[in-house]
Amino acid sequence: MVKRFVVAPDSFKESMSAKEACEAMARGIKKVFKDAEISLVPMADGGEGTVDSLVDATKGRRINVEVSGPIPEGKVTAYFGILGDNKTAVIEMAKANGIELLPKERRNPLITSTYGTGELIKAALDHGVEKIIIGIGGSVTNDGGAGMAEALGVKFLDGNGQSIPQGGGSLNQLVSIDTAELDPRIKEIEIEVASDVTNPLTGEHGAAHVFGPQKGATPEMVEQLDSNLKHYAHIIQKDVQKSIEHLPGAGAAGGLGAGLLAFTNATLRPGIDIVIEINQLEEQIAEADFIFTGEGGMDFQTKFGKAPYGVAKVAKQYQKPVFACAGYIGKDVEVLYDEGITAIFGILSKAKSIDEALKNGESNLERTCENIARILFLTSEQK
Amino acid sequence: MVKRFVVAPDSFKESMSAKEACEAMARGIKKVFKDAEISLVPMADGGEGTVDSLVDATKGRRINVEVSGPIPEGKVTAYFGILGDNKTAVIEMAKANGIELLPKERRNPLITSTYGTGELIKAALDHGVEKIIIGIGGSVTNDGGAGMAEALGVKFLDGNGQSIPQGGGSLNQLVSIDTAELDPRIKEIEIEVASDVTNPLTGEHGAAHVFGPQKGATPEMVEQLDSNLKHYAHIIQKDVQKSIEHLPGAGAAGGLGAGLLAFTNATLRPGIDIVIEINQLEEQIAEADFIFTGEGGMDFQTKFGKAPYGVAKVAKQYQKPVFACAGYIGKDVEVLYDEGITAIFGILSKAKSIDEALKNGESNLERTCENIARILFLTSEQK
Repeated sequence: MVKRFVVAPDSFKESMSAKEACEAMARGIKKVFKDAEISLVPMADGGEGTVDSLVDATKGRRINVEVSGPIPEGKVTAYFGILGDNKTAVIEMAKANGIELLPKERRNPLITSTYGTGELIKAALDHGVEKIIIGIGGSVTNDGGAGMAEALGVKFLDGNGQSIPQGGGSLNQLVSIDTAELDPRIKEIEIEVASDVTNPLTGEHGAAHVFGPQKGATPEMVEQLDSNLKHYAHIIQKDVQKSIEHLPGAGAAGGLGAGLLAFTNATLRPGIDIVIEINQLEEQIAEADFIFTGEGGMDFQTKFGKAPYGVAKVAKQYQKPVFACAGYIGKDVEVLYDEGITAIFGILSKAKSIDEALKNGESNLERTCENIARILFLTSEQK
Repeated sequence: MVKRFVVAPDSFKESMSAKEACEAMARGIKKVFKDAEISLVPMADGGEGTVDSLVDATKGRRINVEVSGPIPEGKVTAYFGILGDNKTAVIEMAKANGIELLPKERRNPLITSTYGTGELIKAALDHGVEKIIIGIGGSVTNDGGAGMAEALGVKFLDGNGQSIPQGGGSLNQLVSIDTAELDPRIKEIEIEVASDVTNPLTGEHGAAHVFGPQKGATPEMVEQLDSNLKHYAHIIQKDVQKSIEHLPGAGAAGGLGAGLLAFTNATLRPGIDIVIEINQLEEQIAEADFIFTGEGGMDFQTKFGKAPYGVAKVAKQYQKPVFACAGYIGKDVEVLYDEGITAIFGILSKAKSIDEALKNGESNLERTCENIARILFLTSEQK
């Protein structure tokens, strides 16, 4: 009987995209199950690779846009996706204002801004979509999403009615917010924010304290940024009549979560859940005999919303076996057995250098999956 | 139903012995098949680790002896094994006269000798054994086994009736061989030589030409050694009435094969076949459901008499599935699928350094086997 497979890996970072990983897995399986039906479902978890995953899975398209980078005067060419339904856009904030766009010595959350992210949203609106999915992981900003809102027409004014400078360091100058010129399309559109972060905007679990240091903030800057975000929340309360300071997720992406909640119809949702829905993973798993997943590295943290965990969670509901592959297998990976992952294999063929392991990712993965498939084939034949 | 396993790996060189590898595999399997019956069969292929494998598999013992090293004036403490039957000794020539006992700059096949190997044979005879198994791989000698024979009482004389110096470089001084004082026990004892090498003693496929260079011979030394071995074979023909020059395997271990064939009742046999017989692998595979094997590295050369190949060959006769694990997976390893190996897994958990991979060999192997077992458990439960 023809066996049905779903291959649903995340990307193997610096080695292969989720789509390339899907193809390598499928090649391995096909060597054993020659007439297998294999569904290729490139996965992501709302972080890096989410646009690529959803575009590839839905046969959508990518749109390049020049927008402001993390430091607004520096422009970057970012892209967002239009999904196969032609009605949904998918954006990664990090493609405009992400941490990897700035070398370490230039990271300064007093001045970095989410303005470019707002421009990406605007570009998506210009394409007439009805829904926008925004992955907000990997930011290098701490501006509360003020830059994003400004790009969409919101005015952040000082005591003289002048626009305050961009960046989290200037929010203490904020006296009033004017939303009169906010792009009217924002009121009509559904925005789904892919975020696993549940931190509030301010305080010891807030954006500045928890995420500020990795974005270049000194202890003094953390205090200043946190105080500024408190003030920002206060002005939003006053002028926009929204209380966002303590909402779970408001502290995501340097407060971009708060900005999206304050100025748009955004809802926050775990990234993996969004990807599972858009990629129709559940429907495909329901029909499959065997599921393959994987990611560049897997360890106990995979349980905290990573793609292989999401795949396993769905497969577990349908009691389908899940085989996982990873280039790096780390601490306490065996906690995943209880989450629906049947077996986990390292794909490396030798210990030499990380560079070489990365370069040979696809052939290593192909070989490993072929071998897993060989076991399954054997046991299938015996039935 | 209780599942039966045979775990039969070779050693993972520089990482774990075959016995340690067996134990790691068994631990992995036991995590899944909690009441499995697991036979631990440490393997070897006649090369390094053969004494340990056979002693461990038969619950025998190790005997330390001080003998001459590769350069006769240097003594080494070597050990040989007495198997569980108390009637069979097992020797590795490399433990007395092996290449790893001399640093590269001191390797000189003009003077290195197999005298210490003869002393090991003598020590085994002193223990009253009825049979000796000798693994002859890894030698740093090219003396045609003359040193070995001398240690057992054979006299190699020059024109003045004086003993010639040891080492392949002096064999041209040989005028006559006197076997009158050869240890009489040698005539009674069965000697089985574990060797995969089929090279003749002399000529372009002979000991000096093929193996001399890796033992430190310059091109001039190779010519001299080959010429000396021809002369040696001629004197053996004259005084011992044995024609060994062109016998397959006579060129093994710098002509130690020839010496054993000339002066003892030796028969040559592939090492893996000897190990399979002594370790009673076939009987155990016949009773098993699943076989696990492995070695530090596996590639297409595994087919040329390595332990995982030998294990697979037996398992194939009984149509039992074989799962192989290796720290390094090399070129064209997939040729092994046709040889009875169902699946091959790399055991590495990350790419960092070879040192670290070696250090973590056991836990990596345990994890990999546990995972293979998880698949098998799953498919067993479904039946």
